[in-house]
Amino acid sequence: MNDKQSEISEASDPQTDRDESQVDSHEPDVVAGRIEDIPAADGADVLEEMSPAKAADVAEYLDPDTAGRILSEMDPMLAAGVLTDMEPPEASMVVSAMRPDDAVDVLEHLPARVHDAIVDEMEPEEAAEVRQLEKYPPDTAGGIMSPEVTALAENLTVQEAVEELRRLSEELEQMFYVYVVDQRRHLVGVLSMRDLILARPERRLSQIMRSEVASVPVTMDQEQVARIMQRNNYLAMPVVDERHRLIGIVTADDVADVIQEEATEDLQKMFGAGAEERLLSPWTFSFRKRIWWLEVNLATAFLAAWVISRFDTVIALLPILAAWQSIVSGMGGNAGAQALAVAIRGIAMGESAPRLIGRVLHREFLVGLLEGTAIGLTCWLCAAAGIFGYHSHPFFIGLIVFLALLFNHINACVTGVLIPFAMKRFGFDPAQSSTIFATTFTDCGGFFATLWLAEQFMRWLK
Amino acid sequence: MNDKQSEISEASDPQTDRDESQVDSHEPDVVAGRIEDIPAADGADVLEEMSPAKAADVAEYLDPDTAGRILSEMDPMLAAGVLTDMEPPEASMVVSAMRPDDAVDVLEHLPARVHDAIVDEMEPEEAAEVRQLEKYPPDTAGGIMSPEVTALAENLTVQEAVEELRRLSEELEQMFYVYVVDQRRHLVGVLSMRDLILARPERRLSQIMRSEVASVPVTMDQEQVARIMQRNNYLAMPVVDERHRLIGIVTADDVADVIQEEATEDLQKMFGAGAEERLLSPWTFSFRKRIWWLEVNLATAFLAAWVISRFDTVIALLPILAAWQSIVSGMGGNAGAQALAVAIRGIAMGESAPRLIGRVLHREFLVGLLEGTAIGLTCWLCAAAGIFGYHSHPFFIGLIVFLALLFNHINACVTGVLIPFAMKRFGFDPAQSSTIFATTFTDCGGFFATLWLAEQFMRWLK
Repeated sequence: MNDKQSEISEASDPQTDRDESQVDSHEPDVVAGRIEDIPAADGADVLEEMSPAKAADVAEYLDPDTAGRILSEMDPMLAAGVLTDMEPPEASMVVSAMRPDDAVDVLEHLPARVHDAIVDEMEPEEAAEVRQLEKYPPDTAGGIMSPEVTALAENLTVQEAVEELRRLSEELEQMFYVYVVDQRRHLVGVLSMRDLILARPERRLSQIMRSEVASVPVTMDQEQVARIMQRNNYLAMPVVDERHRLIGIVTADDVADVIQEEATEDLQKMFGAGAEERLLSPWTFSFRKRIWWLEVNLATAFLAAWVISRFDTVIALLPILAAWQSIVSGMGGNAGAQALAVAIRGIAMGESAPRLIGRVLHREFLVGLLEGTAIGLTCWLCAAAGIFGYHSHPFFIGLIVFLALLFNHINACVTGVLIPFAMKRFGFDPAQSSTIFATTFTDCGGFFATLWLAEQFMRWLK
Repeated sequence: MNDKQSEISEASDPQTDRDESQVDSHEPDVVAGRIEDIPAADGADVLEEMSPAKAADVAEYLDPDTAGRILSEMDPMLAAGVLTDMEPPEASMVVSAMRPDDAVDVLEHLPARVHDAIVDEMEPEEAAEVRQLEKYPPDTAGGIMSPEVTALAENLTVQEAVEELRRLSEELEQMFYVYVVDQRRHLVGVLSMRDLILARPERRLSQIMRSEVASVPVTMDQEQVARIMQRNNYLAMPVVDERHRLIGIVTADDVADVIQEEATEDLQKMFGAGAEERLLSPWTFSFRKRIWWLEVNLATAFLAAWVISRFDTVIALLPILAAWQSIVSGMGGNAGAQALAVAIRGIAMGESAPRLIGRVLHREFLVGLLEGTAIGLTCWLCAAAGIFGYHSHPFFIGLIVFLALLFNHINACVTGVLIPFAMKRFGFDPAQSSTIFATTFTDCGGFFATLWLAEQFMRWLK
């Protein structure tokens, strides 16, 4: 949350500004001199690409305000690395210069010892604010809100309010809405700047404010806050504590960040890469996050391989089935991933009313039926034409593959939506856990259908 | 873009409000009466779950303003279905009541005949505005902006400006920034409401405005607009035409929608489900969007199956290899998907500087090496222990599987990041096309490594 619109003359975009922000010299003072003059988001890119120790050297050459703005734009984990390599007194000046909500995001990634050394060096008032914000879990309204919210007492006149705003105007970054509170700071109303401009100076705020003001509790999950603001096209929303006292504000740019973060998490969790992994995360971090998922998948891969191993006499007689079964399971996997992607995004965007499941399943059944028919007929033709060279019974192998594909496409489409809905129903994260089960169904289903049909066919041949 | 904060007293959220907004009766007038009193986003949910014909019946019972607000919140494709089933005069009143940017999103999904019938019924001024907006492609700044932007002449005094704002205040939904233009409507400056409140009444806007104002051209891609606004935490950004004349405004809630939309598109395109598919899209639409991707994947599945078919003598001798090769290719597919997910999100979030590719590849090589070692050793042990029952040469089959997994995990991690970077480099959409190639590499690589190693081993045995 930062009204910098009018302070920066040129928009910063990594795709187009890349060449200009490139820094060639590696002397920390030279680098510091150059990144002082570019937008903070570009400076953040430069520091992110350095080792934490080098970035800390550069940060110590910057004035604390500039360094604070830049660290606010960095990935919190990488920014924490920079702070760790700085001297605590200097690090604490940088942290003080950061927006409090960003500072807390970075501080949570510091080892306790470094964290305390830095916070202890801060001004008591600022340290208290940070410690207060740290009480809110990072993925709640309290974790994303800014505590810097414009609140005026309800008994002020418009004239007094304007004077108060003038006094506050240097402290507060944004002032789109003015919230009205009673003596105990309970949220009682809202005014837009427009309302203030248009009102007669002698009227009291309580007379001109709108008393129906939407707010969210500090403990609400950030995804829910984002969904509410997005559904209603809100640009800002006040945050209240359990006694309905105004304690912060969430703005639409915070919502954009939450949506971005959640989309990344959903996609990466679908494949078991950690939600926090980035292109430049340490490789040991990536390995630790990815390996447990692979081990779980290995168990399901063994299950599918076990299905194949049960039919090794069939395969020994018709080894070309080993090739065809990979097509049946692979195409099922592709079809299942499509259904899964639509279902997971649908759930993430709040389209997942349980009473719709019947209609959704019916839809997917038809899609799978048609897909299986189309792909199956293509494969039948290819098999009959001997696409993998001469083999016995090409026509019947084609028929087996056709039937197996028909079954596996319907299987894939139906389980592709059923699994995430079921995960959601039983309180699991649909993105996290669905792909493992979906792949198990399409792999085992594809192998079993192909080989079981082949076995029946061979019995019938005898 | 809609400043409704203070107009709605209760926040609307699909997860929690579901029960209250449930509508049991199916009589259109009863349904209409009920959804008049709930937030527009909830009303949109109710209509989306009906057939277009039924929803049109309900919409005809609503007053046009309410219907317009509700259709603005619906999925554009579904809203178009409702308009198609209404009488053109009534449909045009609803379209007139929608925000112009939303109206255009819906109109583009109408058949030309219905579209023209509706637009021809609109007031000439409104019809002209719609036709102007329709000239901008939907995924550009022009496609997401609102044309309703507050612009004041630079030679006005503060006093005159406040009077002008008072006059405009009923027309304009939001007024956070006031943009300053010259006689030819060129954008020359920006003022916040705060600046206006704090300035002396007799000063001219040209004296108090900030003349360094960031803007985006109307033709800029919506993703780039979103990235710029998100990077700089802008809450609003003016849109200018090729002569730098102010023609619209994009706000942070539009950015949130773009990010949401692009994340959905990226995920669904990764698996070849159409970017626009939703849980309740018509099944024929889903089939048409999904099938071409499956056909392309079928070609790559044939390639992988062809690799297997080249080794059918090896499989006939050791059919258990058909089981093990499915593990090697499957685990490679899982590991590749992890690397791919991180790379695609990294590129989407603008972390994809080409000069970083060396570091990223080095990182992935190490991750793959360690993964392959861990998974490979597990499988070696399982093979040696005869997990799939008794087979000849369990120890050597384990060794083959170990080496094949080691190769395929490195292959998966490296190609998983290399492919999206290369796609991006050659101007393709990384999300769209990467998975096909990645799967081809891990499938063919896994099958080939397993069976080729087995072939070598058998020669050596002789």
